[in-house]
Amino acid sequence: MISIHTPPQPTDLSDVRVANRAVVLRHVRLHAPCSRADIAAHTGLNKATVSSLVTELIQRRLLRETGLTENRVGRPATMLVLDGEPYAGLGLQVGDDELVVVAVDLGGNRLLTWRRAFAAPTVPAEETVRALAALARRAVTRLTGQGRGVLGLTVGVPGLVGADGVVPLAPTLGWRDLPLAAELRRALREPGFTVGVDTDANLAVLAEQRHGAYAGTADLVHLTGGTALGAGTVSGGRLLRGGRGFAGEIGHVPLDPAGPACACGRHGCLAALTGVDAVVRRVLPDAERDGPVTDYLPEIDRIQALAHAGDDTVLTGLTEVGRWLGHGVSILANLIDPQVVVVGGHLAALAPWLLPAARAELSARTLAPGACRLEASTLGSAATALGGATAALATVEAGRLPTT
Amino acid sequence: MISIHTPPQPTDLSDVRVANRAVVLRHVRLHAPCSRADIAAHTGLNKATVSSLVTELIQRRLLRETGLTENRVGRPATMLVLDGEPYAGLGLQVGDDELVVVAVDLGGNRLLTWRRAFAAPTVPAEETVRALAALARRAVTRLTGQGRGVLGLTVGVPGLVGADGVVPLAPTLGWRDLPLAAELRRALREPGFTVGVDTDANLAVLAEQRHGAYAGTADLVHLTGGTALGAGTVSGGRLLRGGRGFAGEIGHVPLDPAGPACACGRHGCLAALTGVDAVVRRVLPDAERDGPVTDYLPEIDRIQALAHAGDDTVLTGLTEVGRWLGHGVSILANLIDPQVVVVGGHLAALAPWLLPAARAELSARTLAPGACRLEASTLGSAATALGGATAALATVEAGRLPTT
Repeated sequence: MISIHTPPQPTDLSDVRVANRAVVLRHVRLHAPCSRADIAAHTGLNKATVSSLVTELIQRRLLRETGLTENRVGRPATMLVLDGEPYAGLGLQVGDDELVVVAVDLGGNRLLTWRRAFAAPTVPAEETVRALAALARRAVTRLTGQGRGVLGLTVGVPGLVGADGVVPLAPTLGWRDLPLAAELRRALREPGFTVGVDTDANLAVLAEQRHGAYAGTADLVHLTGGTALGAGTVSGGRLLRGGRGFAGEIGHVPLDPAGPACACGRHGCLAALTGVDAVVRRVLPDAERDGPVTDYLPEIDRIQALAHAGDDTVLTGLTEVGRWLGHGVSILANLIDPQVVVVGGHLAALAPWLLPAARAELSARTLAPGACRLEASTLGSAATALGGATAALATVEAGRLPTT
Repeated sequence: MISIHTPPQPTDLSDVRVANRAVVLRHVRLHAPCSRADIAAHTGLNKATVSSLVTELIQRRLLRETGLTENRVGRPATMLVLDGEPYAGLGLQVGDDELVVVAVDLGGNRLLTWRRAFAAPTVPAEETVRALAALARRAVTRLTGQGRGVLGLTVGVPGLVGADGVVPLAPTLGWRDLPLAAELRRALREPGFTVGVDTDANLAVLAEQRHGAYAGTADLVHLTGGTALGAGTVSGGRLLRGGRGFAGEIGHVPLDPAGPACACGRHGCLAALTGVDAVVRRVLPDAERDGPVTDYLPEIDRIQALAHAGDDTVLTGLTEVGRWLGHGVSILANLIDPQVVVVGGHLAALAPWLLPAARAELSARTLAPGACRLEASTLGSAATALGGATAALATVEAGRLPTT
């Protein structure tokens, strides 16, 4: 029906060139290898414009010619692909028990994925910043050693992220008002590339939108696993940020006033019912016998093994967790109406036992006929870092030429 | 930080002219009276472009010259305003106990606001369609009699609205799979203007965005009053529709599993705790003595009078309703992070007694520091119809010339 648009922007000729450059890059990303004539035919740009843009993009090493030709009537065409070689984006992620760095090139190829066991919730923020900087430096050294320019770096954090990369609150990490982007820039000695910070959920949904099983879906949510649950939402093709950038805080939606205590001080929040620590505690009552769990991977492995073996306690527990998950997702479905909700982290690892119950609950609680799809992420536990690396390339993809 | 944009669109010269026309119209709407030179100075368009666009817009009677001149150095300038005279948009709204029609001109002036008592929930859908068509016809006759062209008509409905103006579900009206736009077009004998349908909440937030006390706010929610509660959301300046257009169904968010029965079959949904029928039943236990209430205005008047008189039962009841309202809005605030939530209908009429408790609850339940504002709408109970009339003018405001 109707739409409320962002205010119209006046269009001048340099804007037109930036917009058209983005159109060409996008077309090649989605349809490579393709010829100049293909681009003109499918984008509606005229041939002279395409030719001029392609020449510039080849000079700046954002496109390259493959030398292939198409078999068709008329003159054989030179085929174009994105030039993956010269530029890379970096993404970092602060998880419950590890730090992750991912690098991708403009063509979407993963150049590296490194993990480092690190219990960020148990150490001071400064130490986490130092560890992030050390990991980023190693990745930058590797990439520049390969002759690539790093265009940017984005860190994903389980918490609120404000303007200028300040983290006002990350409850599971114990952070308050941490100027993370500025501290990281300082720790990296003011690098020649952009340093951004975003929520883990926002970056994970960006990774889904680009690289996941539902890539290109215009209305898509990624629900992170972990101790703090966040919902990254793409609505109508755009990231839903909210007025202060604080959208997506689904972890403390109250589902069961009589439920278990939550870190936020209330009872029965979605995170207290379906967060990784809550799930481990629920289905492995002995897990905390030797003290608090700070490394979740072995516990998730144990749960999977017991579930595969048909352990009744574990199966009953996971079904119950699945029902709460479906209940939580139904609130999101009724309010935001995504086409697909993709779950990550431990929710993806335990999906075979969680999702059937979750889908039944979701369907029963969705007002509109036919609930949205609820699926496990196929991106693994580095989705946030992958999204961070993708985000670091966003300005080039929007048609701005790299400054390095 | 980063943004996920809609796919870039190739820009050609006719697109540029449409976009620039929208920029000029918007500038005049916000800053009239203003001169051609003002427009050029503030929009970044060059003077020749502005001059050509203004000439065209005057010819099409979208702008007019006032003849006023500014006192300033140099040649006196001819001042421009939107030409309100020639075109109008119509909005209709199906309420719990009335139909409303509003007409506005391009300058945002309300040309008429007519109400007709009508208990849509108690009559067959065909009868409601006939009554809507009769009301629309009267308004069109009035407007064309004044020499105005009607550019479009949009109806707001408390329920789900799908593509092509079909209403798959409107529980309070008893509608299922009603092709409302098509039936209304037929009842109006295929009029020469567009006929659209949208949810009451979407149209109400459009009215807020344009005409309300928080006009221009980029992240804004209008929460309708009435028996079915809906949330119309503008996020980042754009209406949040969802993948199937079914976003905003906040009425059946479950707040209290031990609460009163809801029309949806569950207990303690937001609508069952704060909908107009629930509020009347909660604070006026005698209201249904003579049968079901089908006309809410007198009951709201009674509640206001009793509250003003300090009636304990009513004040306690309204405080409790206010707490549930704040609870419901906190879910919206945590998930979507609007800057302002504006409440309409009976929630606005009872705001002095509802909002203090609601704000306290909202603040306590918002994870981010400092909750969003929660305010009463100043648009009155015709907000949806006003938004419908505004929506009907959207294509012209987007820079497309009227076809009538």
